[in-house]
Amino acid sequence: MDIDRIDAAAARLAGHARRTPLLSSPFLDEIAGRRVLVKAECLQHTGSFKFRGAWSAISKLTPEERAAGIIAFSSGNHAQGIAAAAKMHGVPAVIVMPSDAPAAKVAGTRGLGAEVVPYDRATEDRDEIGARLAAERGLTLVKPFDEPEVIAGQGTCGLEIAEQAAEAGVTEADVIVCCGGGGLTSGIALALEARAPGMRVRPAEPEGFDDVTRSLASGEIESNAQLSGNICDAIITPRPGNITFPIMKRLCGPGLVVTEEEALRAMHAAFRHLKIVAEPGGAVALAAALYRGSEIEGDAVICTVSGGNVDPDVFRRALDTTF
Amino acid sequence: MDIDRIDAAAARLAGHARRTPLLSSPFLDEIAGRRVLVKAECLQHTGSFKFRGAWSAISKLTPEERAAGIIAFSSGNHAQGIAAAAKMHGVPAVIVMPSDAPAAKVAGTRGLGAEVVPYDRATEDRDEIGARLAAERGLTLVKPFDEPEVIAGQGTCGLEIAEQAAEAGVTEADVIVCCGGGGLTSGIALALEARAPGMRVRPAEPEGFDDVTRSLASGEIESNAQLSGNICDAIITPRPGNITFPIMKRLCGPGLVVTEEEALRAMHAAFRHLKIVAEPGGAVALAAALYRGSEIEGDAVICTVSGGNVDPDVFRRALDTTF
Repeated sequence: MDIDRIDAAAARLAGHARRTPLLSSPFLDEIAGRRVLVKAECLQHTGSFKFRGAWSAISKLTPEERAAGIIAFSSGNHAQGIAAAAKMHGVPAVIVMPSDAPAAKVAGTRGLGAEVVPYDRATEDRDEIGARLAAERGLTLVKPFDEPEVIAGQGTCGLEIAEQAAEAGVTEADVIVCCGGGGLTSGIALALEARAPGMRVRPAEPEGFDDVTRSLASGEIESNAQLSGNICDAIITPRPGNITFPIMKRLCGPGLVVTEEEALRAMHAAFRHLKIVAEPGGAVALAAALYRGSEIEGDAVICTVSGGNVDPDVFRRALDTTF
Repeated sequence: MDIDRIDAAAARLAGHARRTPLLSSPFLDEIAGRRVLVKAECLQHTGSFKFRGAWSAISKLTPEERAAGIIAFSSGNHAQGIAAAAKMHGVPAVIVMPSDAPAAKVAGTRGLGAEVVPYDRATEDRDEIGARLAAERGLTLVKPFDEPEVIAGQGTCGLEIAEQAAEAGVTEADVIVCCGGGGLTSGIALALEARAPGMRVRPAEPEGFDDVTRSLASGEIESNAQLSGNICDAIITPRPGNITFPIMKRLCGPGLVVTEEEALRAMHAAFRHLKIVAEPGGAVALAAALYRGSEIEGDAVICTVSGGNVDPDVFRRALDTTF
């Protein structure tokens, strides 16, 4: 994995993925006690950054692979990204989704023309299900994060952050990234290593599901004790990836961990002051920027809002908070 | 008023106003029965397009005028745009606001450092109050819409629509604009006349407050019978402006009128499929695009989401709708 691969992905994504805005508000700066720049990936096609990695991977398939189709497993955002990018490439897609995924994400995935295969997140192994279906139907598996072309696609978000932050006069900052398996985090870290070396990427995770934070602290891959029971469902994965973790270990600063309540408050703040819709898992980086300021260094902080696919009931809970 | 004045405003706004994205979703296309492109001005600084006109007007003041300060009257979005642009120019600002304006807008205006003077929308005349305060304190009045430099600033939104729509392959379309006094509508119409002559601007208004639609139909300036009692408060004004109306009469197609319920449904659709926060008045153009398709021509339609300054209680009502 290197910057050339991310640049190549950026060339394939040009004109297809959105260059999402880097937003800000003086009211958020006041809460955080420093300047806050927000990379609004919820405004990406399908409502999350996942479209980038999906497009990157699918656009590299051979004609034979495209004809046979692809398969992916995902709690929702990767699913929608894959479904949309596959449809735009004319490639059939099968998505293995947890049966407790938010209704908006399941409906979104089906609405984009993909076949959805549900599984029980507590008792079944999605890797095994994916591998079996891939073998049976000759499908190409597009992994959600531990796949070089997916990481390269997510890294294009980092290229944009480097350019947009420089335009805003910021070249040194902690860059807080909502982190599940580490695809976005490692991709952005690689991009910034090359294009904005004054920045340091830091993963943000929900309390109780802080596998990456613990792995970075111990230097070894650590797993989560559980895989459900948190509203930040979009970024809950068993453990960091075999490809993503070494990149994060080399490049990232310490992880930041926030509560569900803090994620909901950050969603409310984003609603009020940025006019964007964040999902809980997509709000953990902003929550860290706003409420964990003592763990952050520098006059400015950059954070991703990585997705906005949230059901109205959860959004109402965010609106009930005081931020 | 001509395109040169809009280009000059664009030069002054460069690096200060945001170039807001032109968003889309296949799910919205399906509802509308045609391609829908959404100019997300809710993502502009202060949450509405009004920052453009405010910056345009304030950046043209003389040093003497800047030192004395400015005054504006507004239901909220112009207030915040003026307050933010004034602060960035180091100019003191007094804002005359209706006492029933949404709390978020009043708080936003005060938070940006402006002095807020409340008035009763039903019994007092904001023009008279503004003129009196301006005379007493030597302030320069920046009108919300019937002012050439304000119209030129709003017109920069039209320049971006022309460029971004062309990038998306759209050069012929109805362009539906959320319309109060006509500043944004006339500004965009002037910009598109010069830069995208295949497009036709059409104002959108809430039912019962359709002064511009009736004025365009009769050819004369018509007034609203009432000035409160609709959730689309941001775009309710007594009548079209003396400067804006002749521009709209020359360039715009027939107005489109939507119900409060349709505006709320469009807010929900924007939440779900675009991940943006729209206020009711800022959603009437999208509502027309989605629900008044029989009154629209062409394979594509462009609409503004002109603002996103909405209180949580009203947003909850939007989430309760089926769109």
